[in-house]
Amino acid sequence: MDYRYAGDAHERLFASYQEDSDPFPTSVTACFPDRDHRREEVAILQELFFPTCWNAPELVRDELAVLDRLDELGSLFKAGICPYTDSRPDETVAAVLDSLPRIRELLKLDVEAAYKGDPAAKTYMEIIRSYPGFLAIAVQRVAHVLYGLDAAEYARELTEYAKTQTGIDIHPGAEIGEHFFIDHGTSVVIGETATVGEWVRLYQDVTLGALHFEEEEGDEHALKKGYKRHPDIGDHVVIGAGTKVLGAVTVGDHVSIGANSWITEDVDDHTKVFIKDHPTQERKRYD
Amino acid sequence: MDYRYAGDAHERLFASYQEDSDPFPTSVTACFPDRDHRREEVAILQELFFPTCWNAPELVRDELAVLDRLDELGSLFKAGICPYTDSRPDETVAAVLDSLPRIRELLKLDVEAAYKGDPAAKTYMEIIRSYPGFLAIAVQRVAHVLYGLDAAEYARELTEYAKTQTGIDIHPGAEIGEHFFIDHGTSVVIGETATVGEWVRLYQDVTLGALHFEEEEGDEHALKKGYKRHPDIGDHVVIGAGTKVLGAVTVGDHVSIGANSWITEDVDDHTKVFIKDHPTQERKRYD
Amino acid sequence: MDYRYAGDAHERLFASYQEDSDPFPTSVTACFPDRDHRREEVAILQELFFPTCWNAPELVRDELAVLDRLDELGSLFKAGICPYTDSRPDETVAAVLDSLPRIRELLKLDVEAAYKGDPAAKTYMEIIRSYPGFLAIAVQRVAHVLYGLDAAEYARELTEYAKTQTGIDIHPGAEIGEHFFIDHGTSVVIGETATVGEWVRLYQDVTLGALHFEEEEGDEHALKKGYKRHPDIGDHVVIGAGTKVLGAVTVGDHVSIGANSWITEDVDDHTKVFIKDHPTQERKRYD
Amino acid sequence: MDYRYAGDAHERLFASYQEDSDPFPTSVTACFPDRDHRREEVAILQELFFPTCWNAPELVRDELAVLDRLDELGSLFKAGICPYTDSRPDETVAAVLDSLPRIRELLKLDVEAAYKGDPAAKTYMEIIRSYPGFLAIAVQRVAHVLYGLDAAEYARELTEYAKTQTGIDIHPGAEIGEHFFIDHGTSVVIGETATVGEWVRLYQDVTLGALHFEEEEGDEHALKKGYKRHPDIGDHVVIGAGTKVLGAVTVGDHVSIGANSWITEDVDDHTKVFIKDHPTQERKRYD
Amino acid sequence: MDYRYAGDAHERLFASYQEDSDPFPTSVTACFPDRDHRREEVAILQELFFPTCWNAPELVRDELAVLDRLDELGSLFKAGICPYTDSRPDETVAAVLDSLPRIRELLKLDVEAAYKGDPAAKTYMEIIRSYPGFLAIAVQRVAHVLYGLDAAEYARELTEYAKTQTGIDIHPGAEIGEHFFIDHGTSVVIGETATVGEWVRLYQDVTLGALHFEEEEGDEHALKKGYKRHPDIGDHVVIGAGTKVLGAVTVGDHVSIGANSWITEDVDDHTKVFIKDHPTQERKRYD
Amino acid sequence: MDYRYAGDAHERLFASYQEDSDPFPTSVTACFPDRDHRREEVAILQELFFPTCWNAPELVRDELAVLDRLDELGSLFKAGICPYTDSRPDETVAAVLDSLPRIRELLKLDVEAAYKGDPAAKTYMEIIRSYPGFLAIAVQRVAHVLYGLDAAEYARELTEYAKTQTGIDIHPGAEIGEHFFIDHGTSVVIGETATVGEWVRLYQDVTLGALHFEEEEGDEHALKKGYKRHPDIGDHVVIGAGTKVLGAVTVGDHVSIGANSWITEDVDDHTKVFIKDHPTQERKRYD
Repeated sequence: MDYRYAGDAHERLFASYQEDSDPFPTSVTACFPDRDHRREEVAILQELFFPTCWNAPELVRDELAVLDRLDELGSLFKAGICPYTDSRPDETVAAVLDSLPRIRELLKLDVEAAYKGDPAAKTYMEIIRSYPGFLAIAVQRVAHVLYGLDAAEYARELTEYAKTQTGIDIHPGAEIGEHFFIDHGTSVVIGETATVGEWVRLYQDVTLGALHFEEEEGDEHALKKGYKRHPDIGDHVVIGAGTKVLGAVTVGDHVSIGANSWITEDVDDHTKVFIKDHPTQERKRYD
Repeated sequence: MDYRYAGDAHERLFASYQEDSDPFPTSVTACFPDRDHRREEVAILQELFFPTCWNAPELVRDELAVLDRLDELGSLFKAGICPYTDSRPDETVAAVLDSLPRIRELLKLDVEAAYKGDPAAKTYMEIIRSYPGFLAIAVQRVAHVLYGLDAAEYARELTEYAKTQTGIDIHPGAEIGEHFFIDHGTSVVIGETATVGEWVRLYQDVTLGALHFEEEEGDEHALKKGYKRHPDIGDHVVIGAGTKVLGAVTVGDHVSIGANSWITEDVDDHTKVFIKDHPTQERKRYD
Repeated sequence: MDYRYAGDAHERLFASYQEDSDPFPTSVTACFPDRDHRREEVAILQELFFPTCWNAPELVRDELAVLDRLDELGSLFKAGICPYTDSRPDETVAAVLDSLPRIRELLKLDVEAAYKGDPAAKTYMEIIRSYPGFLAIAVQRVAHVLYGLDAAEYARELTEYAKTQTGIDIHPGAEIGEHFFIDHGTSVVIGETATVGEWVRLYQDVTLGALHFEEEEGDEHALKKGYKRHPDIGDHVVIGAGTKVLGAVTVGDHVSIGANSWITEDVDDHTKVFIKDHPTQERKRYD
Repeated sequence: MDYRYAGDAHERLFASYQEDSDPFPTSVTACFPDRDHRREEVAILQELFFPTCWNAPELVRDELAVLDRLDELGSLFKAGICPYTDSRPDETVAAVLDSLPRIRELLKLDVEAAYKGDPAAKTYMEIIRSYPGFLAIAVQRVAHVLYGLDAAEYARELTEYAKTQTGIDIHPGAEIGEHFFIDHGTSVVIGETATVGEWVRLYQDVTLGALHFEEEEGDEHALKKGYKRHPDIGDHVVIGAGTKVLGAVTVGDHVSIGANSWITEDVDDHTKVFIKDHPTQERKRYD
Repeated sequence: MDYRYAGDAHERLFASYQEDSDPFPTSVTACFPDRDHRREEVAILQELFFPTCWNAPELVRDELAVLDRLDELGSLFKAGICPYTDSRPDETVAAVLDSLPRIRELLKLDVEAAYKGDPAAKTYMEIIRSYPGFLAIAVQRVAHVLYGLDAAEYARELTEYAKTQTGIDIHPGAEIGEHFFIDHGTSVVIGETATVGEWVRLYQDVTLGALHFEEEEGDEHALKKGYKRHPDIGDHVVIGAGTKVLGAVTVGDHVSIGANSWITEDVDDHTKVFIKDHPTQERKRYD
Repeated sequence: MDYRYAGDAHERLFASYQEDSDPFPTSVTACFPDRDHRREEVAILQELFFPTCWNAPELVRDELAVLDRLDELGSLFKAGICPYTDSRPDETVAAVLDSLPRIRELLKLDVEAAYKGDPAAKTYMEIIRSYPGFLAIAVQRVAHVLYGLDAAEYARELTEYAKTQTGIDIHPGAEIGEHFFIDHGTSVVIGETATVGEWVRLYQDVTLGALHFEEEEGDEHALKKGYKRHPDIGDHVVIGAGTKVLGAVTVGDHVSIGANSWITEDVDDHTKVFIKDHPTQERKRYD
């Protein structure tokens, strides 16, 4: 397929680029990571977290191979942070890499939670290799460290990449406890200021989101940034498919919320919430 | 891993291919794009729309580099259109490329809408590089031009590709106004005959779809094609997560619809819609 | 971007790997497929099922080319099964390959169902090349054979891969009849023990799932595995967007269930189910 | 390895480019083949000439696969010719492709000649896959057709590429008869206006070259172009390693020339030429 | 560059393939290695022989990484042997791999010989990474093992590949002693039945070849195969650039032969050979 | 092709690596360039020297693109120097890059010399794209700068790479004047301490080498390093194919030396040297 364009769109695009101004990015020499970098970072993270599941057994046998991989990951992280900042990102990268062993321990607990929480799970390896909920939390736990280190935009790039793979959208700012599991998971949303306790299990289409948004004064389309607007979830909580928990409410410990529920007020500890009267459905026979 | 198959499936498959007949494609010499082409087209579009965000600063510095990229994109477009048509697709490709500068201006407004509409957004670059809602509308705006140029099937290939990356399904036929923003976005569906005004903001799990489908006479499984079956949405509208707007209804300007709503009738201008009595939920304490 | 890590995370990770024990995988010499293998398998399956749509017309012209492709696919399958088992997987691979011609016939019926069931569908080729619902069922039909051949974990890897591309989660264990079609499809979940009849059509956000889970005695976080917990769906059934069918219930033949419904009890043959009284919505005018 | 250059060489190079003028190429938009194209062309030629030796058995089984390969080769040829000409090269490409079946027949005779002419040759396949002399003549036979079609520069690109692989430098203009074989071959040179008969065998370091060059009047460094300056070699001729045959001399049929000879005059038919008195060598014993 | 061929060369080539018969290869299903395999084998050999010079330090740190690399190399070897034989090549491959540690020891002596024998050599690493003479002997030492294991054709593929990189043509059958060094090396030829002792140093354009070839009775173009026709070189021998040693002669120990010499008779131990009376050269002054 | 090695070669190789000691390289963490780096450097150099001939017209249009390419080249150079030195190579790299504009001017003169000196040359572009002699001198001119900057080993890696492509071996230490041209060129050797004037033209198999080598005292195999041992060639000199100029002799200006000559003594200015009495050749008629 050979195509030669004879119009003037290149002139108009070129002119359009010259007219860009802040807050659109305008640097013509800044450093940028390659197109596939997010995919690369996540692949290396997977190897570092569970080398025997991702064709990287050399990491288990050779400590310097781990260091090589960390350097490779660090270079990608640095390239990822670079477009957003003028300061030297080396300290940030070092701090994230420092946190990986701790995150690995958390992820092992998440694997256990998934295995116990999914009747269809057959082995730990299957969870590590193919569960979207596990990929989503693995990436978010790393992004959360970046978020706390003044690299919030790049952190979001990572979680958004995980979302493209899983349909699960956990904001890097969210604080997620141990033994976390999301089953199926598509369309799950967890907001920036949400917190989640230990042994929490979510299903598809769950939102831990905002109820209303405050507008910036004088601009009806500009929403206010930076205030607490998402729920706090306690320990030992299960939230069924389709349920929305909205606003800065508190869900206590040992709570179970049924599917398709609508929670905009606090829920006490040791509570089961379920819909008592579903909307009446009519069933009509036809032939 | 070396495997040699000793059965006869190849003979049966081969025989099966020979038996294919129209409307299954049967040409054994037709042109086809390579396996990864949709991924390529979208990557080049991203570079052409915001070169400083996608490692292509040369486009800002060198007008002929823009032309080279347009030729490259045009070749891919031509290959994409080719399997569906016998006519020469060069005019179609030229027309789409002609439209890119205008689409770029629209996308800059979409970035603004996203920045204002998401309290968690930190910079324009973050939106351009990682927001799924922004990727979805960028691809759809291009696909919409193709759809209007008699390349509807290929247009749908592009939006379906965007769907694999974002979970957002905007049909190329839909007409979308300026300053459009979808937050989170997974499981959003916008139908072929829907129209959307300016400054509209949608959340995850929203459907702008059909209520009922008419069947072709005499075949209960064949639905009728080609009639208006999706809603018209006005300007300055917000639609909350999980809401379904179904059928050829009209939602007016300055309308706000709460989460999980069910809209099958027209909504007047300057209206807020929200669920008054959610299904009663029972909360039971247990120990 | 050049980064050299100066910390000790590699030592801590290395130590952590050494401490792993069963059920975490610990073999340091086992065979593993390459990082992109699932993507490869699916690409080859697409070529084998519809070569004229995927740039592989040689398969239609040259029987031995089909055999070559089967060998290639078989090698990938073998590598995919390998991490989960010590037994020789060659018999399993042969059996799956044997089943491909039969599955191809099923998929041709699925294409027909999609064409009839989607008013926006223009050609068969468009469906084959870009419909997520079609990709999901194509992969699941293959995975279902693997599931029945004692390769359940790898089967799930394949369906989870399809889920990353489509947002559709059909467990390999589910039994799906002829003429199956999922429109839009994001966030669709079909559970392991579900069965689906002929001419069934689902929309986005539908769940055919479990209502409650039984816990293993003595461990509140460990759910019981291996019992019937998902619905049976009859023939000629349509299920609207957002509907949840939960538990081991039976939905009869010739049933139509409206959007956003909640089904936890059996539905008779020849029945239409729809919500009679949606939750009251308040509409308030504002200025 | 990360390096950032802080000097001004880019400014000086850039200025230098702007100062280039004809006969240096100055077009900034002309078409150019990719970096590796010569390697690609030769690889495809090898497949087309002997598909069963180069992992392309599909060419033997599927006629349309041959056509596909010809199109691929033709596209590369066209790109190779393009930088040197403004005229449309399609006719040239078609004529070269037309000649490939005939060249194949010639090459089969060359294989026979190599097998018979090298005591160390074990099989035909070994010759086809690894003999440098065979690669050199295969490429030259194709380049010779291009040379006769007004694509002399590109023809030379091809033979120079073959020279990088073989050390054998046969100018595309040379006319080479059937059953040609060069053993070892490094440093063999055959000039533009040389002709070679049938059943000719050469060894390494043989030159069929010019004796003196005529200078252009008025420029001692500019040699005259375009006149007959290389030898004509008859049929059934063997020329030993290191021998130089220089000038427009004629070597008859059934001639055998020993190693390290120096031929600047005609040689009659049915003649053996060998050095009678090698330069005296002294042998001294030492301890 | 898009080219579509409209002629009939594909039909003629296709017909020509069908007419091929033994000894041309005719199998349409046989296994063949990929196009670049020889390059791959040599690259892996280089890593296995001197990992710290070829970016493979993991081999020095991790014994199982060595095994992985051996498996990779073995698979390539097996694919390389396969086209030439019907028997299972696994034993041959195992035997070659077994020999690598011994060959490594020989190569370390060759490095020492090169360092001592080249006044311009600065470091061992430079020799290992870039000396053509060292690459040639490294490959030949491996090919020689294959040659002795009934894989002579594939062995020759390897040495011919080394020749493309170095211009040095050492037949796999030649027996080469310890501390071997070829300086510059282009156009060096060492024949199949030659033997070379210890501490031998050769320069460019040296031939250890055949003087005459015997013809098969009844076919003037078919040379006799399989008899001793190349020289035996002793220990501690230096042979200058351009010298030809031809026929089954014996060169003794501690011999030094000057450049451009012509040796067709035995040379005793402890002898220096040099040209006493070079051909008279005339020097003419001109203005 | 799947092969699993069952022997113990990996253990023996691994043990062998551990026993390596200086001067063999032993670092297990040092930086190393990738396998193909020399190929990469040369490709970038070709683009920087003549962008319109190597598909890099953007360099002519966009100054910052030149800088990007210099950074890329600089990173490769740095990686290439790194294995040989502990000092920071940044200054060396900067100095080489600084020299490129000057080298480009020299190369333009070399193109002119080739065009004038080869009767078969048709265009400048043909010379730049395919003449081995031109590639060899282009690489050597760069390597010569590295040689003078204490990066002699890496400089030799570059010229040895050029030798693999051209058969021409110009040591980086040699000093080569303007308007230099080597025709055909295979097996040309120019030694480390040679100097060459302006307008010099060489043909294939020419050596500018050493006559004798001095041995290190006490080790008959170790030659002395670092003294003047190669010729000085004047301006306006032509040296015919196969001629050897050996030892620290001086060849004056305006000298022409015929093919196959043997020069071990000085040659005055304005001299023609040619062989007066070639070794007598016998010609025997046979039937």
